[in-house]
Parts: sequence; structure tokens; C-alpha cells
Amino acid sequence: MTDPTARHYDREFVRTFFTSPTAVEGEDDSAKLLRRAAQLRGMQAPDVWVPDNEDATAPSMRDEGVENVVDVVAEHGADFPGEIHPRIVWHRDDPQTRYRGFQHALDIADPQNGASEYIDGFVIPEVGGVDDWKKADECLTIVEHEHGLDPRSLSMSVIVESGEAELAMGDLREEIGKSENNLERLFLLVDGEVDYTKDMRAMTPTGELPPWPELRHNTSRGASAAGLVAVDGPYDDIRDVEGYRERMRENRAKGMTGIWSLTPTQVEVANTAPLPPESGRWLLDVDGESVELDPEDGRQVYRGNALSLEATGEDQYVLRVGGDERTLDGDELHEKLLDRTSYVPSMDDIVDSMEAFETAKESGKGAIAMTQSTTLAVGDVEVDLSRDRMWDEATYQAAQTPITLFQDVYEHRSDQHEELEERYGADVVERATNVGG
Amino acid sequence: MTDPTARHYDREFVRTFFTSPTAVEGEDDSAKLLRRAAQLRGMQAPDVWVPDNEDATAPSMRDEGVENVVDVVAEHGADFPGEIHPRIVWHRDDPQTRYRGFQHALDIADPQNGASEYIDGFVIPEVGGVDDWKKADECLTIVEHEHGLDPRSLSMSVIVESGEAELAMGDLREEIGKSENNLERLFLLVDGEVDYTKDMRAMTPTGELPPWPELRHNTSRGASAAGLVAVDGPYDDIRDVEGYRERMRENRAKGMTGIWSLTPTQVEVANTAPLPPESGRWLLDVDGESVELDPEDGRQVYRGNALSLEATGEDQYVLRVGGDERTLDGDELHEKLLDRTSYVPSMDDIVDSMEAFETAKESGKGAIAMTQSTTLAVGDVEVDLSRDRMWDEATYQAAQTPITLFQDVYEHRSDQHEELEERYGADVVERATNVGG
Amino acid sequence: MTDPTARHYDREFVRTFFTSPTAVEGEDDSAKLLRRAAQLRGMQAPDVWVPDNEDATAPSMRDEGVENVVDVVAEHGADFPGEIHPRIVWHRDDPQTRYRGFQHALDIADPQNGASEYIDGFVIPEVGGVDDWKKADECLTIVEHEHGLDPRSLSMSVIVESGEAELAMGDLREEIGKSENNLERLFLLVDGEVDYTKDMRAMTPTGELPPWPELRHNTSRGASAAGLVAVDGPYDDIRDVEGYRERMRENRAKGMTGIWSLTPTQVEVANTAPLPPESGRWLLDVDGESVELDPEDGRQVYRGNALSLEATGEDQYVLRVGGDERTLDGDELHEKLLDRTSYVPSMDDIVDSMEAFETAKESGKGAIAMTQSTTLAVGDVEVDLSRDRMWDEATYQAAQTPITLFQDVYEHRSDQHEELEERYGADVVERATNVGG
Repeated sequence: MTDPTARHYDREFVRTFFTSPTAVEGEDDSAKLLRRAAQLRGMQAPDVWVPDNEDATAPSMRDEGVENVVDVVAEHGADFPGEIHPRIVWHRDDPQTRYRGFQHALDIADPQNGASEYIDGFVIPEVGGVDDWKKADECLTIVEHEHGLDPRSLSMSVIVESGEAELAMGDLREEIGKSENNLERLFLLVDGEVDYTKDMRAMTPTGELPPWPELRHNTSRGASAAGLVAVDGPYDDIRDVEGYRERMRENRAKGMTGIWSLTPTQVEVANTAPLPPESGRWLLDVDGESVELDPEDGRQVYRGNALSLEATGEDQYVLRVGGDERTLDGDELHEKLLDRTSYVPSMDDIVDSMEAFETAKESGKGAIAMTQSTTLAVGDVEVDLSRDRMWDEATYQAAQTPITLFQDVYEHRSDQHEELEERYGADVVERATNVGG
Repeated sequence: MTDPTARHYDREFVRTFFTSPTAVEGEDDSAKLLRRAAQLRGMQAPDVWVPDNEDATAPSMRDEGVENVVDVVAEHGADFPGEIHPRIVWHRDDPQTRYRGFQHALDIADPQNGASEYIDGFVIPEVGGVDDWKKADECLTIVEHEHGLDPRSLSMSVIVESGEAELAMGDLREEIGKSENNLERLFLLVDGEVDYTKDMRAMTPTGELPPWPELRHNTSRGASAAGLVAVDGPYDDIRDVEGYRERMRENRAKGMTGIWSLTPTQVEVANTAPLPPESGRWLLDVDGESVELDPEDGRQVYRGNALSLEATGEDQYVLRVGGDERTLDGDELHEKLLDRTSYVPSMDDIVDSMEAFETAKESGKGAIAMTQSTTLAVGDVEVDLSRDRMWDEATYQAAQTPITLFQDVYEHRSDQHEELEERYGADVVERATNVGG
Repeated sequence: MTDPTARHYDREFVRTFFTSPTAVEGEDDSAKLLRRAAQLRGMQAPDVWVPDNEDATAPSMRDEGVENVVDVVAEHGADFPGEIHPRIVWHRDDPQTRYRGFQHALDIADPQNGASEYIDGFVIPEVGGVDDWKKADECLTIVEHEHGLDPRSLSMSVIVESGEAELAMGDLREEIGKSENNLERLFLLVDGEVDYTKDMRAMTPTGELPPWPELRHNTSRGASAAGLVAVDGPYDDIRDVEGYRERMRENRAKGMTGIWSLTPTQVEVANTAPLPPESGRWLLDVDGESVELDPEDGRQVYRGNALSLEATGEDQYVLRVGGDERTLDGDELHEKLLDRTSYVPSMDDIVDSMEAFETAKESGKGAIAMTQSTTLAVGDVEVDLSRDRMWDEATYQAAQTPITLFQDVYEHRSDQHEELEERYGADVVERATNVGG
């Protein structure tokens, strides 16, 4: 029996989906960008590298692009630390484009050309309803059969860039596992917001892309229900690192861990973003915004002026937030401030808590309290805060997601071990790789 | 013919879904919490009480939990004012867990054990696609048959805590009513955001749950399309009553009336929240926020300082909001302030308007204007405001939702009559129970 | 083969869906409002006019309403510049209502009554699941057959005002094209938020409608996936023009171009809103809000006080935003301000950019940079800003949506040519009708 939520591939998480043009006109070596990408290592190397023979490459250069992919992957594929998934041409409305994509896949995966063994799968753009996905799947089945490759050894990832494809993600569970297809080869569901916006005929005054929260939810849900991995589309403003990070934060809260990267710098940012921070930090909620506090001599200092605090007598304080002013005793002040603070745990903190819960569970306890303490300093006033959180099986399992991600990275990306150890220290890395087993 | 949107159960609305551990280790009486919950009455007693033999109870205590449920429900079930729906163990990925849940249901519903006649149905957690829902349905069909209970007399509620289950809610209309199942027994669709977050592999920096607006929409829509009742998951921060209320306000705007409750205090808050307020109140929109005005001597007083108003001459006023300052005559001022005010009607107001519309309809009118008047006081300036709202058949029917809810509560929860009469007065209660028939 | 995303009707875009009561009691001429609407021309005339024999007309007047529709359309239909789609009665839960709607459609479309040739289709309210849509489709098939009209010559538009109908929009692709139905006649998917709110049993404190973002997304997606046109429901506060515009901006970012209109003034606003502006404008992002700058002598002036700028020395500036203050040199200042500005292109700008890209493409280039320059003035400081945007095939095609809309309007609404030329100038209009071919 086929379990559609079982994952049929090596990586449980994919942080980065990095595309490179396969052939650039007017260069001495039209494969220059491919060659450069193939030699990326460490945090600058993506989890999934996509030699892009579709939109990133001019239509007239795409046959040359196929040759370049074959050459570069044959030469560098053995040493490339991530997976390699070329994007071929495809279109739900155009049989000619589909046939061309099929031929390109046949060439790239031909063992006689030398690249085949390093090709993990293909990325299919512009898919429509699920029957169109099956046509692409059938092309790969034929490619495998013609070249004597194992059935389903080529994975298939799709770009979701039409309403039809968005709807198709709701049907995957029912379609995967039918005898007439090999859709178990599915791997990534990647949103393509530029073409999706065009297909939906959406418009914004400045031409910037709409945020499409429902599409991202549906992609993440589709991935979850069919055992696949969800990846968000390109973030065009490559100078805007903070915006890119914010987008990834939003995505992770939707269960979408991966994102497209357009440059090695974006790859590095996106490889790092989903990993727990190396040190914890405290946040103070001021006027609906989370302000990060400044650690100094073991205290957490608030340096803004939207909130102020004054000691006005024995066990008496005045707390001002915006236009609001309150006189409080010490206990009331403690409670007010506790409500406004939250803690972002470090990798070390998460591992600590998980280990403590595992120990408690072995000794028969179902829930334990984890305590986080600090001293909050606002102006001249200092307040000791202590926050308990109950950990039970559910908390434990939810906390495990970033650790499972880390372990997946650690297992498959030995080229990043050094950078991970620099970041967290060898001890934390070792404990993090062993916890939760 | 089966109409899938027809409701196959007594309650049209469920405000509260209150879980109690079935067996707590280390207590003299492991059923202590069950016993206490079974004796709740009035606003502290939930519409649906859930002896929870799954996550709230340690795995090693679950067989004892089943005995406790049987004992406590046999003793107290006859007098309990709400419905009783134990949660048994279940998992889409684990046949052993499913078989254990089946056995627990067989025990609990065995008439020889004395609890059966007070058991309204079972809650099934961790369901997957709709075929997994059918397996749980089949277990209950067998339980009914083995114990000589009427077919479908046991209702089935599910916890939606996976992407698969979220998708399944879109298929219920097509599946309910097929001869091979008894899915007409479905009752509640309950979101379980903790496990859903884990299943979606979502992460937030502080570990708090994502808001999942799309899941809640889809649950509410699934309930609406299949004649079921939608219930939101637990709100963990039990001290944060205002946050709990805000969550319920959001939920009601999505059509989700019910919510999980973890304590009798949460039950009381959640039983009360969806009922119309006992007195109306005026809101003033200041900088995008709705500020509640202070009623005083028949006027509505604004006491903030983000908006100010000054009479500067004969029929001339200066209105300041944030950095913006405008000189207006009386008519312009009236219009500006009217745009910024809104009215939250009381139960009495709603009943009044409905009665007035019913009278108008009998005399052949299709629409009437309802007027709401007050005097707004900002600083030394007072402005008389009067707001007309057209009521037609559609307005009437939309306004009916809170009244229908009230009537459903009044019909099924006689233990709350006294508290409802204290809240609204006997006259309003009587009119509210009769209007809209 | 039927391509479900191919559009089976004339208009690619519908901006306005304007309903008129078919018979008003107590007037000398019960068809007065119909007659007035039928004579609207230019920007006040809708793309789709809906003589509304359902909610806008009292139940007792609906037979007379049918006669009025026939009379007024027979007299004015030939000259009406938009399409004509009467709304008949229908309800998923009531066969009597469905049969009455069927009879009304038979009457209205009867060629002997003289209106038939001007009727483009019918609007069906209160539909349920897709099988209910098929019943309405079958009624229209019989109407066509009885009256000797071409199969599918009557289009069918539906009001989505139940959870069932929302779900049905996900199944259209699979149902359209089956031999047993004529669902290719589908044209508009129109949200009906008042009844949807009632059907979902949603409540808000003041009785205002919830925003239902997911419904609008699903309607837009359903339209995109099945080659239909998405239209938002009525905006009740007809005095609130800015609110209506804001709702349409939101809708367009979701791919929903059309909206219901209740008055000729709303029609005019909604016919204009999706068209590109006649002149471009610059926006400055201040505290998360986009503030429109004031063009003056070729500069763009910021007149607010939330952001200020001061020259404090040779190539040294102080920029203050909210509580934040920074000392910057000229280059840093340039970059900071560039990050905060954006440009809303005019129709002329869009046509320019498209023409430039078309020329570049002909000469073999795949991407070109478009430059937008201006001088930003804050207090006494002026800064020259220049912003490049790369245009490739994808940018080009996304930019095309408003132009395609314009061309669709220009082709089908010759009564609006004069107003369009007044707005844009004859030259821009001519270039806009020819670009992108």
C-alpha cells in the first residue's frame, strides 16, 4: 500500500531553491553562470540547485542551455553538495512546449552524456490541473524507461503558477498511488507568484506582487497532505535582506520552510533563516510591535521611548505606554510586564528543554515546567521576570520541528558542518544532532 | 433523500467544548477532575463536555480513564445539563491506536455499564482523509449494532489537526448520505491547532501558535456546507481573558461560534461571549481603532486625546485627529462624526428591530428605516447624532443569527435560565425567545 | 475538446454589475427604475446590467417584474451599451422557487415577447453544490430549446452566497465540458456577502459584514481556473466612495476586477477604478503608510511631519522618521529615500514601457531597464532620485493586464470612447489600443 504522506525522497526539508540561467548570450562562455553556481559550497550552496532552462534563459538559447547543463553537471555534479533539479520548459496550454521539454529531459538524463547520475529530478513549470501533472510524470516515466533508469528515480517538482495548479494540490492524495501514474515521484511544490499574478489577472497600483497568503497556505497544506515540500517563489528585491527575512518568517508560520533564491547571497540568508538562533533574545510588546531588548550585564534593557517606567514611592510605580498611564504596585507591575514580554529561544535552549522533557518522560512524568528568567531594565527601574512554560508531549513535538530541520541539514550537508559549528559551538551541534531520536 | 446541510442533532449552536482528563495519576481519586466537571451547572457548564481520554490523559492511564468515564457518567450523566462526548484515542497513521479507541468506545457505550444512555457521541482526534473518517464512523456503527443502539444515535465529532483532514472537509457533502457509510452522524468540526502546527511543520520564533486564519475559514465553511458545527481549538493562556474574547470575536466573524475551553472560567467566558450584550454601546473610530465611548447622562463621552474638538465661532468647529486639523461648519462636523461612529446593539435593540420589521412586513412593507440617536461629547462640544439603517429581509435574517443562538441556548440549557434573566431581564428574555418564529 | 479555461463569451473583463429592481410598488410606473437604468450611457452605464427580479424586488411584485423586464428590454435593449443579464429567483433548498425562476426565464427569453434578442444571459442566485448549478443550467437549456435559440447562447452567472457554492467553484473545471451539461455557458461568479454571512452564521458586534478575504480569493481562483469572470458583492454604504475604491483596490490585488454597483454613481466610480491613472504619482512610505507626494514645479513634495530632513553640513544630512534619527551622507540618504519611494505608473507610462520592451525584443534583447526619475523635496532639502526596473517577458506580461482590460473596454464600449479620450488624450488612447498585440 502506498502511503501518500510518506516522503519518497532524501531531504525532509529544503531551505533553498536556487536558479541559474543555463545559457547567457554574448558571453565567451555561455555556461559561465552555471559553472559558477556548480562550485558553490557551504552556506552559499543551495539545498536544491536548479539549472533553469525556462524563464531565466532566453528562448533562443535553450537548446544550447541543455548542452551546458549536461557539460557542467557531468563535470561538477559529483562534488556538488546539494541536489540538482534542472527546470525544463512546459506549458499546460501548449503541446509544442511540452514536447520540447520532454526532449530536453531525454537529453539531460541520457547516461551516455555523463550528467544523468547527478540529476535528482526535474522542475516542471506552468502546470495546470492534475491531469497535466500526469502528462509531465509520464514524460519522466518514458525518460527513465528509455535510459534504463529505475522507475521513479527522477523526482518531479512543479511550479504552482495558475489557479488550476493551486486547485490540483487538493487532489494529490487521491491521485498519488494510482497504478496508471508514478506521481510518487513528486518532491517540491514551488509557488511562482509572478506568473500566478498574471494568470489571476491581478493588478496593484505600483506593479508590485500581491502577497497571496491563501496561495501560500494552500501550497503548504498540499505539501503536508501529500508528504511533499513547500517552497515560496522568488523575492525580486535582492538588496532588501530584511524584507526577504520577514517573508521567510511569515512563510515558516504557514509551514512553508523553503524559498527561491536568486543569488548566492540570498542562498546564504535563506539557508540560515530557518535555523534556531545561536543566542536567545527577549522581546517587549510595545503598541502592538515586538521590540527586541538589548542584553547588557545580564539585564535586558529597553531603550525606546514609547514605554516608560518610574518608581514613585515604596512599592509604587508609574507605567506609561503611549497615552496610557498607570500607577501599580510591584506585583501588578510584574504581571503587566510579564504579559508584554516573550522569549525567543536559542538552539541551546531548545535542546535543553527537549532533553529535560525526555528525562522527565523516562521517569514517568507527562509534563514539566520550563522556567525562563531575566531582569528587565526600563530607565532606572529594574524588574526581575520569571516565566514558566508547561511542556507536554505536544509542546515537545512542536518544538521538534526546527531540530528535525537542523538534523536533516546536518545529515545531508556535510559542507556546512564547519559553519554550523562556528555558529553554535561543537557541543550544541552534537547535542542537537542526538536529541529527539 | 438525505439533505447534507440538514442538521442531524439537537443543538444548532455549540458555544463551549470543555475537556477534562479522564484519569490523573497520583490522586486519591484518579477521577477527581471528571467528577468535578460533571457537577458544573449554569454558565460554568459547557454545551459539550468532553471526558478526554486522549492528549489530556497520560497514555498509561487511559484504560483506567475509560472506567472512570463509565463510573462518573453513569452516576452524574442524568443530571448533566450539556451533552457528553468522550474523546477516545485514534490516529490516521496507526491501526493499533485505532483499534484501542474502538475498544474504548465499545466499553463506554455498553448499556450494561450504565453510562451508555447519557453518551451523546464520541470525539475522534487525528483523523486524516475522508476515508479515515469513514473508518471511525464504521467503528461507531459496529458499537451501535453490538449494543443494540439505534443506528446513528452516537454522533461523531472530529479534531481537524492535519492538512489531510482540512482537505477532507471539502468532500463531506459528497460523502455524507452514501449507503456505505453513516457519516450523517457527524456533529462538530473542531480545530486542533497545536497538532496541526506540528503536522504542517510550522515554526514561530517564540513558539506561539500561528493564527491559521485559512484553517478556521475552511472549518467554518466545511461546517456550513455539511450542516455541522465549527469549533475552534484551545486557547492556552488561560489568564488572558481579553485575548480569549478577541479570538472568539474573530471566530464569530468567520462563522465559527464555538471554542474549546480548558477551565470552568473559560467555559463561563465562552458561554457568554456570543450572546448579544445586555446594553448597547457606541464606538468612535480614532486612527483606525474603535474606541468605546463612555455613557454619561444620556451622552456618549470621548475621553481620549487622539481626537479633539473645539467650537471656534458661530457654527464653526475645529476637529483635530492625529496630525490632521479641519475647520468645519455644523453640518460638515455632523457628517464627519457620523462616519466615525458605530453602534453595537443590545439584545433589546435587536429584538426591537426584528419586531418592528415583522410588523412592517405584515402590513406589506419590504424595508423600513431603524434610527439610532445619541449625543456625542468631545471636550466642551456636544453633537447630536442620528443614524438610519435600512432593514430589509436580508438584514432581518442576518440579524437573526444571534437570536437563533440565544433561542437554541434557552431551549436546551434550562440551567442557564436564571443567569440569562439576571443578565437581560425577564421581559427581554421572553420577547427574545418568541421573536423570529 | 473543450478547454475549460477558454472564455466562452465576449467580454474578457467585467468592471460593473449593476442591479435594478424590476417592479416598485406604489409608483405610477412600477418599471420607472428599470426604464431609467436602460437609458444610462457612457461611464454611468455598467458593463453588465442586471434587472433584478430577486432580492431587489418585493416577492409580490415579481410577476409584474417579469413583464416590466420584457417591456423595457424590448424597447431599449437594442441601444443599451452593456450586456443585459436579468436575475431570476432560485434557491438550492426550494423546488418551488426554482420552478418559478424557470418560468420567468421562459417568459423573458420568449422571442415573441420582443426582449429575447437583447438578453445575454441570466443570473442565478442562491445556488448550492455543483449539481444545483446543473439544474439551473438545464433550465436554460430547455429555455433555449423551447424558443429555438442556439444552444448555450444564454450565458449563466451565479451568486456565490453559501459555503456549498464556494466549494463548488473548485469543481468547475472537471464538470464543464461533460456531455450531460452545458456549463460552458457560465460567465460571472459573483460573491453575495450578505446572504453568505447569514449562511455561514457569522456575527459582528455592529452588524457590519465580515471582510471574507478567503471567499474572494476562492472566487477569483475559481474564475481563473475555469475561464470565468469574478465579481465582488454590493458595497452598501453608497456615500462612502473612498471605502468603495479601497475595496476595489483590494479586490484587484486578488485578481477580482468586477464589483456590484447599486447606483449610477457607484457604476461610474467602478467603471473608472480599474483603468490606469491619467498621470503617474510618487508615493513615500512613512511609518508603514504610503503617502502620496505633491507634484510641484517638477519636484515631488512631502508635506507631512512624520518624516523630516535637514542638511547639517557638507554632504551631511539628518533624517528623522518617527522617533528614529540618523545622520547620513548624500549616498546613504539617496539609498534610504529610494527604499521608501515607489511610483504608480500612468497609462502613458505603461504604454511607453511596453512599446520600449517590444522594440527591444524585436532586436533580440530579453530584458531592458526602465528608468523613473524625480526630485524629492522634504523641507528645504531636495534629493534627485532615479529608479531602474528590469523589464523581461514576465514583467511585460504582468503589466499587460490593465492594458488588456482597457482594450476590452475600448472594443465593447464605444459609448465610453469620448470620456476615455477626455481622460487620457486621443494619442495615448490610440497607442494603448494598439500596444501588446
